[in-house]
Amino acid sequence: MKKILIQFDTDSLPSSFDRVVAIDSGVDELFSYGGVTPENIEPLIHGAIFTRSAEELSNTAIFISGSNVEAGERLLSKIQDTFFGPMRVSVMIDSNGSNTTAAAAVRCASKHLDFNTTEALILGGTGPVGHRCGQILAAQGATVRIASRSEERAQVTCAEIRHVVPEAKVVPCEFSDEGVAAAVDGINLIIAAGAAGVQFLTGEEVEGIETLKVAIDVNAVPPVGLEGISPTDDAAEVNGATSYGAFGVGGLKMKTHRAAIEKLFTTNDQILNAAEIYNIAGSV
Amino acid sequence: MKKILIQFDTDSLPSSFDRVVAIDSGVDELFSYGGVTPENIEPLIHGAIFTRSAEELSNTAIFISGSNVEAGERLLSKIQDTFFGPMRVSVMIDSNGSNTTAAAAVRCASKHLDFNTTEALILGGTGPVGHRCGQILAAQGATVRIASRSEERAQVTCAEIRHVVPEAKVVPCEFSDEGVAAAVDGINLIIAAGAAGVQFLTGEEVEGIETLKVAIDVNAVPPVGLEGISPTDDAAEVNGATSYGAFGVGGLKMKTHRAAIEKLFTTNDQILNAAEIYNIAGSV
Amino acid sequence: MKKILIQFDTDSLPSSFDRVVAIDSGVDELFSYGGVTPENIEPLIHGAIFTRSAEELSNTAIFISGSNVEAGERLLSKIQDTFFGPMRVSVMIDSNGSNTTAAAAVRCASKHLDFNTTEALILGGTGPVGHRCGQILAAQGATVRIASRSEERAQVTCAEIRHVVPEAKVVPCEFSDEGVAAAVDGINLIIAAGAAGVQFLTGEEVEGIETLKVAIDVNAVPPVGLEGISPTDDAAEVNGATSYGAFGVGGLKMKTHRAAIEKLFTTNDQILNAAEIYNIAGSV
Repeated sequence: MKKILIQFDTDSLPSSFDRVVAIDSGVDELFSYGGVTPENIEPLIHGAIFTRSAEELSNTAIFISGSNVEAGERLLSKIQDTFFGPMRVSVMIDSNGSNTTAAAAVRCASKHLDFNTTEALILGGTGPVGHRCGQILAAQGATVRIASRSEERAQVTCAEIRHVVPEAKVVPCEFSDEGVAAAVDGINLIIAAGAAGVQFLTGEEVEGIETLKVAIDVNAVPPVGLEGISPTDDAAEVNGATSYGAFGVGGLKMKTHRAAIEKLFTTNDQILNAAEIYNIAGSV
Repeated sequence: MKKILIQFDTDSLPSSFDRVVAIDSGVDELFSYGGVTPENIEPLIHGAIFTRSAEELSNTAIFISGSNVEAGERLLSKIQDTFFGPMRVSVMIDSNGSNTTAAAAVRCASKHLDFNTTEALILGGTGPVGHRCGQILAAQGATVRIASRSEERAQVTCAEIRHVVPEAKVVPCEFSDEGVAAAVDGINLIIAAGAAGVQFLTGEEVEGIETLKVAIDVNAVPPVGLEGISPTDDAAEVNGATSYGAFGVGGLKMKTHRAAIEKLFTTNDQILNAAEIYNIAGSV
Repeated sequence: MKKILIQFDTDSLPSSFDRVVAIDSGVDELFSYGGVTPENIEPLIHGAIFTRSAEELSNTAIFISGSNVEAGERLLSKIQDTFFGPMRVSVMIDSNGSNTTAAAAVRCASKHLDFNTTEALILGGTGPVGHRCGQILAAQGATVRIASRSEERAQVTCAEIRHVVPEAKVVPCEFSDEGVAAAVDGINLIIAAGAAGVQFLTGEEVEGIETLKVAIDVNAVPPVGLEGISPTDDAAEVNGATSYGAFGVGGLKMKTHRAAIEKLFTTNDQILNAAEIYNIAGSV
């Protein structure tokens, strides 16, 4: 029986990135839908769960993609509400690549840090990747500062993380020119996950953080967020910290993405979101 | 040469149900189009008939899907007008699953009844499945009452059935609380094909029909149309009649659907509509 | 590693013609996008170039289709601007079948003529196929008259051809009832590439051109542009000239189309436009 992956994308043209990776993960047939909303998805879910017997449903799976993470979460919620009893298929959500990128970035950091004693700063912490980096780190026991130009947005993200990880030690952190010294005080890990073209810290500023051990920048397009890190850095020593650039993280991200899709087809009852994808990233 | 099925769906997002079944029927490549209309379909038909030699065209076929049966019939008409000489491919129409569901439901009844002496009542007889159940039964020689809350709509459906089956013995039947006794008088077969959530008859009312032999309800979502029938009933004795629920009919529906798609690829000149699909349902 | 072709179509429903040919050319996976514009294509290009290693990128390719040739050229331009360094895949453009049809038509003519001494007349010379026939002929050394009812449009096409082929000997030619004698004076080759249903010349007029050696009509729907030519003519003698109809050209067009798609997957740095596709047509 052929392995069918049904891609539900919240953008009008479904992600070609996720389509190529699906094929390279061994999917036999890929059905790609664009412009999917909670309003139009129900018959498509019925088509997934009513076409094969309960025993065969591990050969059908759903992948949620698109640039808008919140829109993707709304689809996931509607999908879970529509499943019933054994009539369900496994689902992976990776809108904007946020889960696989965050999982890989935190895994890179984990090679060098004990998260139970780690103070982490997430720059661009309210964006899709930053948000999930913070969530995964908090679930692993780290203390996390969610930085944003807007303290209000940082507070919202902290609250959302606590909703998923009740024991999370997360604090909002307004990141402005005057606030840099306080924001970086005592931190061991920085992850820069901001928009393309925003430089958060100069090389000198990074070098000045004496407690810093690991610096990660997931932006591939120069200028990167942490001056001095090159996209190809892969555990390189830069500005006195073990550093990873976007492609350094990217290798693990791609392996994780492929392994997660393969895992979808082992049973029909999995929901692969941030925590589950972080676990997968640890075993690829 | 690969077997290519081109799905033309009248809804904006093409049916995932029909896509999964197409793959499970052995189609090699499936091209799925949503939002197809008589106005935009012509170049897509040309692409089907002008890309392979006349001898090879049995490897290309068309499947019409979508929730609106009339819109599907308009596509079929435009497709037939666009074909010419040997430049044609085989076409199956199963908008809303109406043909495969109706064919399977009537086949279930045929195991227990001689249609030449059968009086049938179709509840929800003007809907897509009810309409085709009535048409197939009439073509098989049964006398058919097409029931609807609106006698006018029932008359329209009867006229449409007579257009396809000139010798059809069909009569419209206004189905209201006062009219139940007359509607069920002397019938041997009931098929309930109404909208989800509408109960047409109580178990007591069904039990009271002394001439009744077979009762079929194609609705999977409770409450079903004939009280007492369970979706999983498969020739079960309920309320004194041999009864079938949605999943009882569904097994044969799926086999019929797959067999019809396989048949598309045996020649390039078939039109598989209600009558042809009923024939297929008899040999799976 | 599977060969993935990504089809970017400028029409809302992607060409089924080009989809069937892609499958028949041995593509393993085909991703078809409709409604693609320079504004929404960038993430789709990134998905093509960022998902496989540079060494593997010859297994991914792009095909530009759609009825509007200018819109296709704008996509090509945006695609080339988005590629950088080794991050690129091979691209073929064949909007409206214009390149493969023109390449095949000119190849048919080349069997009978030395283009260095050929005077050619392109009827419907400003349309997609006519434009590319003129461009390829000019690149091969022929003197080309681009005929149109509007001399202004013919001048624009001549300028566009000279932009691509600076040494082109092309002249605009207003084609009206009074101007026929001047337009056909001394020509050796006519290619009729106008809209369906337009007859440019009667059989008598064609027969009266004493210098004429080859006549080609790429229109498949009667009435064709050159009276007397049948769509199935394949080097037939008609009105005193060696003549080709649409299907006579079509066999070579299809072989060229398939060979060009196969060639896409040999390296990751090709752009297959009119000139490259004409070369391919010479070796199939």
